[in-house]
Amino acid sequence: MKAAIIGGTGYGAVELVRLLNNHPQVEISTIVSHSNSGNELQSIYPHLSDIIKTSFAEMDVEKVSEEVDLVFFGTPSGVSTKLVPQFMEQDVKCIDLAGDFRLDSPEIYEKWYKKSAPPQQYTEKAAYGLSEIYTEEVKNATLIANPGCYPTATLLALIPVLKEQLIEPQSIIIDAKSGLSGAGRSVSLKAHFSETNENFRAYKLAEHQHIPEIEQILAKESGVDLQVSFTPHLVPMTRGIMCTIYSNMTLGKTTEEIIELYQTFYKDHPFVRVRPEGIIPATKEVYGSNYCDIGFKVDDRTGRLMIVSVIDNLVKGAAGQAIQNMNLMQGWDEQTGLTNVPIYP
Amino acid sequence: MKAAIIGGTGYGAVELVRLLNNHPQVEISTIVSHSNSGNELQSIYPHLSDIIKTSFAEMDVEKVSEEVDLVFFGTPSGVSTKLVPQFMEQDVKCIDLAGDFRLDSPEIYEKWYKKSAPPQQYTEKAAYGLSEIYTEEVKNATLIANPGCYPTATLLALIPVLKEQLIEPQSIIIDAKSGLSGAGRSVSLKAHFSETNENFRAYKLAEHQHIPEIEQILAKESGVDLQVSFTPHLVPMTRGIMCTIYSNMTLGKTTEEIIELYQTFYKDHPFVRVRPEGIIPATKEVYGSNYCDIGFKVDDRTGRLMIVSVIDNLVKGAAGQAIQNMNLMQGWDEQTGLTNVPIYP
Amino acid sequence: MKAAIIGGTGYGAVELVRLLNNHPQVEISTIVSHSNSGNELQSIYPHLSDIIKTSFAEMDVEKVSEEVDLVFFGTPSGVSTKLVPQFMEQDVKCIDLAGDFRLDSPEIYEKWYKKSAPPQQYTEKAAYGLSEIYTEEVKNATLIANPGCYPTATLLALIPVLKEQLIEPQSIIIDAKSGLSGAGRSVSLKAHFSETNENFRAYKLAEHQHIPEIEQILAKESGVDLQVSFTPHLVPMTRGIMCTIYSNMTLGKTTEEIIELYQTFYKDHPFVRVRPEGIIPATKEVYGSNYCDIGFKVDDRTGRLMIVSVIDNLVKGAAGQAIQNMNLMQGWDEQTGLTNVPIYP
Amino acid sequence: MKAAIIGGTGYGAVELVRLLNNHPQVEISTIVSHSNSGNELQSIYPHLSDIIKTSFAEMDVEKVSEEVDLVFFGTPSGVSTKLVPQFMEQDVKCIDLAGDFRLDSPEIYEKWYKKSAPPQQYTEKAAYGLSEIYTEEVKNATLIANPGCYPTATLLALIPVLKEQLIEPQSIIIDAKSGLSGAGRSVSLKAHFSETNENFRAYKLAEHQHIPEIEQILAKESGVDLQVSFTPHLVPMTRGIMCTIYSNMTLGKTTEEIIELYQTFYKDHPFVRVRPEGIIPATKEVYGSNYCDIGFKVDDRTGRLMIVSVIDNLVKGAAGQAIQNMNLMQGWDEQTGLTNVPIYP
Repeated sequence: MKAAIIGGTGYGAVELVRLLNNHPQVEISTIVSHSNSGNELQSIYPHLSDIIKTSFAEMDVEKVSEEVDLVFFGTPSGVSTKLVPQFMEQDVKCIDLAGDFRLDSPEIYEKWYKKSAPPQQYTEKAAYGLSEIYTEEVKNATLIANPGCYPTATLLALIPVLKEQLIEPQSIIIDAKSGLSGAGRSVSLKAHFSETNENFRAYKLAEHQHIPEIEQILAKESGVDLQVSFTPHLVPMTRGIMCTIYSNMTLGKTTEEIIELYQTFYKDHPFVRVRPEGIIPATKEVYGSNYCDIGFKVDDRTGRLMIVSVIDNLVKGAAGQAIQNMNLMQGWDEQTGLTNVPIYP
Repeated sequence: MKAAIIGGTGYGAVELVRLLNNHPQVEISTIVSHSNSGNELQSIYPHLSDIIKTSFAEMDVEKVSEEVDLVFFGTPSGVSTKLVPQFMEQDVKCIDLAGDFRLDSPEIYEKWYKKSAPPQQYTEKAAYGLSEIYTEEVKNATLIANPGCYPTATLLALIPVLKEQLIEPQSIIIDAKSGLSGAGRSVSLKAHFSETNENFRAYKLAEHQHIPEIEQILAKESGVDLQVSFTPHLVPMTRGIMCTIYSNMTLGKTTEEIIELYQTFYKDHPFVRVRPEGIIPATKEVYGSNYCDIGFKVDDRTGRLMIVSVIDNLVKGAAGQAIQNMNLMQGWDEQTGLTNVPIYP
Repeated sequence: MKAAIIGGTGYGAVELVRLLNNHPQVEISTIVSHSNSGNELQSIYPHLSDIIKTSFAEMDVEKVSEEVDLVFFGTPSGVSTKLVPQFMEQDVKCIDLAGDFRLDSPEIYEKWYKKSAPPQQYTEKAAYGLSEIYTEEVKNATLIANPGCYPTATLLALIPVLKEQLIEPQSIIIDAKSGLSGAGRSVSLKAHFSETNENFRAYKLAEHQHIPEIEQILAKESGVDLQVSFTPHLVPMTRGIMCTIYSNMTLGKTTEEIIELYQTFYKDHPFVRVRPEGIIPATKEVYGSNYCDIGFKVDDRTGRLMIVSVIDNLVKGAAGQAIQNMNLMQGWDEQTGLTNVPIYP
Repeated sequence: MKAAIIGGTGYGAVELVRLLNNHPQVEISTIVSHSNSGNELQSIYPHLSDIIKTSFAEMDVEKVSEEVDLVFFGTPSGVSTKLVPQFMEQDVKCIDLAGDFRLDSPEIYEKWYKKSAPPQQYTEKAAYGLSEIYTEEVKNATLIANPGCYPTATLLALIPVLKEQLIEPQSIIIDAKSGLSGAGRSVSLKAHFSETNENFRAYKLAEHQHIPEIEQILAKESGVDLQVSFTPHLVPMTRGIMCTIYSNMTLGKTTEEIIELYQTFYKDHPFVRVRPEGIIPATKEVYGSNYCDIGFKVDDRTGRLMIVSVIDNLVKGAAGQAIQNMNLMQGWDEQTGLTNVPIYP
């Protein structure tokens, strides 16, 4: 199968290139970058020298549609809003790594993203590509709203216990930490080395656009309209997200019982690794891989459950999950092309 | 005044050396290190070459007591339990950077520290050296239990709002992040560079020995026996602590009103810097200095207050606060020797 | 084919596990670790959870020899000296990542390694596994002395120009920089995070054991007995080596002519990537991959040639080149199992 | 004395603010920043909150000249070329941290800086502010060309041995490594965190503008017109420069003899610390301080001398040396305001 990548100079796109290069069923036929069209890929990303010998193309919906069956969007939010409808009219499947098609409500989208919402008919068509949870929807979809990095780590960690009503829906607090690659390749003072190295920062308190995405899915899975506290932080490292999640338990379950619940819930989902009692995952343990690792601790003193989940924000949080979704859409084994071991140390 | 440092090869001790070297009123006359006695300081810490030309001494209570008026302990927990009584019998003032004398209850100390508690009469004598809160106690004390790094950042952030009953005491969740220098200079796999760099980890979930210290002081200040959730994490950086603190508000205060409360509360305490609305401090903004910076966000959607506090764990979280306490004990301006500007970038 | 790894808790060994897991022709049947025998691999390396479900075995030459055709040694120097002869007597092929069999002269080995040299008959049997240079020797060998990380980056960069007598053999200066993973997993103050982060250090000036290895091969290739200046440094990062190499030119070649020489020299060797004029490779451009990237600059003002080469010390500098050598020994395509794209960013 | 800082939003300027804040004799009366005029200093640099309560001023030569006796320039090259003459006409002393007045020859300046040279009469008036070497010139100067960061570390390391004709002038190779703060605060892909972290790079091979500065001074001190090889690299850290310097020895001196020469040479210069045999300084050992530490190794095998020097690029390499020069110009002790101990770890 042939695929195209739109928005090819971002980190999400270049991670798609890395992962798809080892995918046995897919060939990247076009990489579109408005800002770099005409330039060789290896001039912008020298790590690809001699491996990927192609140049960035200019956007041309018709030409791309003739060549490929599927398009990945690694563009900033707002771009796929306009392009997805054009590709879908040409019967090209779309996987959007941006947030454009994730929120059901155009009002909520416009409030949090400060942009015009995409046509409602396309949002309705989009499957939310949290692969382990919406496997069937993804298999049948032609448009995937690939989840955000923070929502992926949060939702995989919370859904099992929330579905079983083991925690109070209104008590959820997500303290999230991310490496800098999540901020993308666009230069800014926030991502300037000397400002960021040997520094730890919180940002967008109670205002991050991933909040409504998390709440929408948690509400759907729990049947309860809920609000969460979500605070993202920047860690002086490149890759990795950890979510430390607190909630009040409704029943006196033990850590072991919680772990058993997750082991059962995810037993057919190899990319979620449930850790045994006493072991809490660290971000480096999933570096470069599509795993989401989850650890647990019931605190009897406070009656709270603590869940810690980690992903590589560029893999399970972006390009890897996009490929996993493509695999599902195409009827392939979901692990195809994604079996690389985390790189450690 | 002459002072001695016991436990001189740890990071807390070497930070005392750095700060005291510029203190106009104090001379370090002896630095004791059992493991390095006889070695020159600059052979263990070459950054002190030509600045501090002295050798580590062996422990000798009598000899030290004759020379100095005050002793700082930078030893691991368990050591000052034995030595503090000996020094105090010789009328030498003691400032203990370890946890030995912080907890009122010997049972709680032994439960969390897995060590024998110190003689109760000395624990009772000890003032808890959170300088801004227990200023008077410190001024009159001869033994200071210098607060832990995490408790310092947590307590300065919580006490004003808790005293005013603006938050529910049982709702407090502290998500804490620390640089690696907090783990000390003893080598371990946890602090091995290749395991730690480009990695983010949680540890000791619901089991950290600073939990009872935080709870003891919060209970004292609020009059309510309470339990907190406290989760420490390790950030791939050397210095800095951030506590991100969540609690349920009891009244509908605005962020601005909370900030005003703190500005008033800390108006005579120059080392606490209350940030204006919309500004959340980062750890690097206090690097190398004795400041504790605090920012605030009221989240109307969830009814929660978020407080973010940052300190340099080796300064306000250890050596700096110890010197601040010494200044108070001696009747000097509390800022003496501590006026260095944070080093940035 | 079945293979065993001896010395399984080091970083070289765990990198062999990562790379061999995706190798289509090889199965790891045993991983031996004296210090961890009986423990599950994933208890020591949690990133392998659910991927490699095996336990470390105790050393048992006979048992391992029955099971496998080839053994990789990731042990500290001195261990393979004793074990390689035992395995070779059982007709098991050996690839040694340590330095034991690299130096032809036992006197030189003992001088630089401060250890007893291995039996001379085995040293003579060993092929020096610099895959691109000694391809034929490797193909026919049953014992491989896998090159050191610094020698790999140095020799691939110098041999073409030295063979062509374009530089003065006695003028070579190699200024080398390495990430910390090269120092291994054994804890030490030198590799302690707080000592290493935000720090840059030189070590073992004119005394590193890779000096005689570099000199032996350069002498062999140039026909001139030569001495080099070689200075290793530690960079606060985990992976990556850069060698910046200076030498006096004998003829007035241009940068472009030098580049053409290398392109021709390495045209059948896909793991060496020769950069175009004006482009100097950075370590991150080979991260996690088996590439050695080389850039060039002729400085007309000084008459010197500068060569910059980079590798991932754990891949081309250790486990990757070992697998490349195994591929050659087995008659497979040398790229088998090594086609992963560098991970960036 | 009152002083002004021009170019107040760069890292050199903010480091001047940090150091001058503890200087007993100087008050900063104005900080000029074209890009931020009108903004509070603490809004751009929150680490200065509550410490420096002033706003950036717009450039106004007349107004500033009335207020102050001395101006520091932390501006990009090209700016002081225009402003220094205006201030000097008003009898205001100038210390320029940029390169404008360092090179005697306007042709060489224009070749390496690609900018118009400043008026020759001012270049002639300027003293090259390498404090330990040109102490007398500095004392008598009204305009200081403050040395570049790399030249400072290089020249202090080379001048003693070159003056004594112990090395061949044409054999000098300087392999230099710098933290990212040397690249300034202007955002760029080169200084973008995700591109720089866990990466090591060489840049501007044989083309860095500090080359003619180094050569001019070395020629002056040795009496020989010479060319050096100089290669700068970027280390993934914020502060610190190391120069590893190679040269051929003319006489068979020992490491110990070289060390004695330097100890004698610098005996009245407290900011140069000569390390004993076997000890090589690391960058962290001067972090935040005005020291230049130097270590030595004679390699008998190659007949080369290796010198390793380290500085904090923002202190001895910029703001600290500027203040040291101001102290000399004013007839104060050169250490005034610069006695802070390096911050470690």
